[in-house]
Amino acid sequence: MRKLVECVPNFSEGRRPEVVAQIIDTIKSVEGVRVLGASTDASHNRAVVTFLGEPGPVKNAAFLAAASAAELINMEEHQGAHPRIGATDVIPFIPIGESTMEECVELARELGREIGYKLNIPVYLYEAAATRPERKNLPAVRKGEYEGLKTAITRPERQPDFGPPHLHPTAGATAVGARPPLVAYNINLGTADVVIAKAIAKSIRGSSGGYPSIKALGVMLEDRQVAQVTINVCNYKEVSLHRVFETVKTEAARYGVNVIGSEIVGLLPMEALLDAADFYLRLEGFSFNQVLEKRLLDQ
Amino acid sequence: MRKLVECVPNFSEGRRPEVVAQIIDTIKSVEGVRVLGASTDASHNRAVVTFLGEPGPVKNAAFLAAASAAELINMEEHQGAHPRIGATDVIPFIPIGESTMEECVELARELGREIGYKLNIPVYLYEAAATRPERKNLPAVRKGEYEGLKTAITRPERQPDFGPPHLHPTAGATAVGARPPLVAYNINLGTADVVIAKAIAKSIRGSSGGYPSIKALGVMLEDRQVAQVTINVCNYKEVSLHRVFETVKTEAARYGVNVIGSEIVGLLPMEALLDAADFYLRLEGFSFNQVLEKRLLDQ
Repeated sequence: MRKLVECVPNFSEGRRPEVVAQIIDTIKSVEGVRVLGASTDASHNRAVVTFLGEPGPVKNAAFLAAASAAELINMEEHQGAHPRIGATDVIPFIPIGESTMEECVELARELGREIGYKLNIPVYLYEAAATRPERKNLPAVRKGEYEGLKTAITRPERQPDFGPPHLHPTAGATAVGARPPLVAYNINLGTADVVIAKAIAKSIRGSSGGYPSIKALGVMLEDRQVAQVTINVCNYKEVSLHRVFETVKTEAARYGVNVIGSEIVGLLPMEALLDAADFYLRLEGFSFNQVLEKRLLDQ
Repeated sequence: MRKLVECVPNFSEGRRPEVVAQIIDTIKSVEGVRVLGASTDASHNRAVVTFLGEPGPVKNAAFLAAASAAELINMEEHQGAHPRIGATDVIPFIPIGESTMEECVELARELGREIGYKLNIPVYLYEAAATRPERKNLPAVRKGEYEGLKTAITRPERQPDFGPPHLHPTAGATAVGARPPLVAYNINLGTADVVIAKAIAKSIRGSSGGYPSIKALGVMLEDRQVAQVTINVCNYKEVSLHRVFETVKTEAARYGVNVIGSEIVGLLPMEALLDAADFYLRLEGFSFNQVLEKRLLDQ
């Protein structure tokens, strides 16, 4: 059975394409690793790279990318709208298919140790890999950002999990963690009334009593005059896409509003959609191993 | 973009496991070919092997398997309940993912030529690869079976597409073709009245005015006391699983009967289920390339 791990590191560089290209080339140079996508944002001054492979090669590629970013990016000169603590700001490992969260946590710890002691960059473990409950939450790890962490790192509660007890002079610090695949999922309503989208978002999101692994906002698609519930499904094994869709459909009906469509932004694991097919077709005894492409990948 | 072709040859041997194992080993010996499954039936005296790979290796494996079957199986001694014309009775090529039917037709012609002239076994092209309209239908190609075809082959309308104008003395003849993936799909009804299942089967199948690519029967699952519509979806791109499911649901409602579940028998392409997810979630602008596993296979 083939184990796959996705890795989505965020680098504090979104204005110099040649620097981002060099980091991506470093990742691509590792055999067995596939770069699936990369995006940069100039105002955030940040790049996000998505790659996939078996655990060993993925960890190696993440380490080499962090080493490359430490050489190429100087946090003393970095400015951008997005919160960040280092040249390689955050590295999440994500289990795909047969991989488990436990394996990704172990991978995060191994990588954290290497970045900490080989690159002399302090590392904070976060989300499923966190060693302290308050570090499960990435914004808490990033509190004060690069500039504030320079002095805060000396406080006992901000001590890194690995590496020196001070920031790297140019690369700062890095958060390394493990989390479930995140599906960016939007549901479009048959209304131009954003108030309805906001009310529905509130009813489904964890922060106001809805599903704990759902984040949601109501927004307006001005060009289409369509109100949208924009959603992060942070753990589709807990709350599947069909449950989100059906809950929104039911809530919308209360306002006499239809769901006119939904959209998946970016990539998602096959399983997240097969779960929906399984639900709606009322499948009995279905196994993902019946999918030809799954068989191919497993061999 | 990676092209994949599935091949599901049927061999006239279901009673000597060592012979079937030898044929499967021949297929496995071709690099780049994956054997996904094999089943034998003693009363049919027949084996069905499913394998997958890129077009070149798949064609080579099919040729070597036909050569092996010609050596190991003697049609003069063959008896079985299933209609057959040769040691390798039928070889269909099936486009998966980005492959096209045209490519599978070309592959069938190339393989047919090789089996015909290198192995001296007459070959009939069938379904999408047929050179005459009446040969699109496999039962028409098999008419008279091995025994009857010995003399019938001399008639102009039964002349093979490739190979000698007479049967191979022990291996008979082989049908080679191209067809869409077939999904074996059953829908279970909340009733023990098989008459309702038969009526619904009649309403959806092509032979009585329903969907041309659907074959269906009403049967009784005695152990569960559940009436079932058992279906072959012969072209899920024409009639998707969700349309079959919803049509059966609507027809069943006319009898006050619910659909209690459905089941997929054996393997199916990912796309057939993603289509269902796409329909029920009302996805806008979704592309199969957003599926992680699809990206992996394409690289």
